Amino acid sequence: MKIKTLTIVGVGLIGGSIGLAAKRRGLAEQVVGVGRQRGSLDKARAVGAIDEGVLDLASGAHRADVAVFCTPVDQIASQILTVAAGCKAGTLLTDAGSTKAAIVSEVEGRLPSGVNFVGGHPLAGSEKRGPEHADADLFQDRLTVVTPTERTDPASLERTVALWQALGARVRIMTPEEHDRAVAFTSHLPHLLAVALAGILPAEYQGLTASGFRDTTRVAAGDPGIWSAIFAQNRAAVLDAIARVHGRLKELDQAIAAEDWLKVDALLRQAKRVRDALGS
Amino acid sequence: MKIKTLTIVGVGLIGGSIGLAAKRRGLAEQVVGVGRQRGSLDKARAVGAIDEGVLDLASGAHRADVAVFCTPVDQIASQILTVAAGCKAGTLLTDAGSTKAAIVSEVEGRLPSGVNFVGGHPLAGSEKRGPEHADADLFQDRLTVVTPTERTDPASLERTVALWQALGARVRIMTPEEHDRAVAFTSHLPHLLAVALAGILPAEYQGLTASGFRDTTRVAAGDPGIWSAIFAQNRAAVLDAIARVHGRLKELDQAIAAEDWLKVDALLRQAKRVRDALGS
Repeated sequence: MKIKTLTIVGVGLIGGSIGLAAKRRGLAEQVVGVGRQRGSLDKARAVGAIDEGVLDLASGAHRADVAVFCTPVDQIASQILTVAAGCKAGTLLTDAGSTKAAIVSEVEGRLPSGVNFVGGHPLAGSEKRGPEHADADLFQDRLTVVTPTERTDPASLERTVALWQALGARVRIMTPEEHDRAVAFTSHLPHLLAVALAGILPAEYQGLTASGFRDTTRVAAGDPGIWSAIFAQNRAAVLDAIARVHGRLKELDQAIAAEDWLKVDALLRQAKRVRDALGS
Repeated sequence: MKIKTLTIVGVGLIGGSIGLAAKRRGLAEQVVGVGRQRGSLDKARAVGAIDEGVLDLASGAHRADVAVFCTPVDQIASQILTVAAGCKAGTLLTDAGSTKAAIVSEVEGRLPSGVNFVGGHPLAGSEKRGPEHADADLFQDRLTVVTPTERTDPASLERTVALWQALGARVRIMTPEEHDRAVAFTSHLPHLLAVALAGILPAEYQGLTASGFRDTTRVAAGDPGIWSAIFAQNRAAVLDAIARVHGRLKELDQAIAAEDWLKVDALLRQAKRVRDALGS
């Protein structure tokens, strides 16, 4: 795959890493970054993630052969719909949003002929923000989920898969809804548990935390605005996941209250098997 | 501080690290390890954590000037009471158990004159096990809580503090009960949340986990037997901590259900402030 102009909308950790990876791997002749603040664009250029930074979304997107939207999930669909009419025929639009169903359904059927959108979500990232944390190997051997629907143009799907593979990722195809149900458990629920745990820590015990507490709550340092938008877009699946963990926590609680150590031990063993299978 | 014979009962990750640190820092002339399996003792000797390994608890403890018990929390008190009568006058007994009130109250008042026990808990460790993961710097700049009571011999408290400081740790004095309430929040509750989260992960989503899920559940790989015993010994404080996180999770759940994004955002911001304050 070879892209003449790759436009990255939103040059934070993910957008910056896409730019770095594209440039290091010779995937794009030119990488254009779109941002709302000159400072972020300058930083992205300084670390080598983009060749040029523009503040105007439309002008950046209209030059693109491929544009990747790496903005908060509540902005992606409207940004795409705003710029689509001015895009060149053959332009591929994709995104890196953490939710897929709302974005895909909002965009689907509303693009001019010749301009296509296919949803994507690289399962990589961190609680860190900004292009200064961009990493050319962020996607290397990590999974990116690509979420076509029945109406997705097959050639555009193929290009989207090729794009993420060229950035180093393994690609898995799922429907947007399947994706959202999965990440409710693998990403959104862990975030909520980390938030709950960090949130109730009595101030006088902060000095007594060690690596266990820090690992378990690490993601709670993520950006609140970005995460509120994710929960809003994946509300039903998130509520279902919360109910499931609530139930398990209640089982643990009741077993400890009843001093049913066989039951506690069984629950600990089952969780250990799952966690051991995931590797470090 | 200079110890002629330091005996370590239980040469796993913690016991092995104490031995390594004591030898590297010239704290003990001789380090004796006590274990139930010859294989663990051989491993501990191979990594340089102990000079000699013995299978008989009493003979190892009776040679000690200082003995540190690094066995599971449900074994520490009975091991101490078993060996105490045969210990030399002036022997200091301490431990590295994750709970303190049950151990301290079980031992207190039952030791022969001249033999003293002071509880300790280094807030360090990992989900890993065994002397092969021992680390001479495990305690370096980490906190160790030392838990005297009104009946603790002042000179023995001083020696215990000096011991942990000599191993590299910062020391904080707390009552056993205060310690247990604190670690219910900072260590035991994170463990239960990790267990609940890992435990409910649908098998088909395992491949979709990334660093967020792995960080949040890392501690669930810990040894089930060790953790059941911890929950048993700190039952009341653990149940209280579960109730608190249950309540916060319910608040998050209700706010998401009601689409009260201001409330969600406020809870996320508050947790981020706490987590940011803890550092990486």
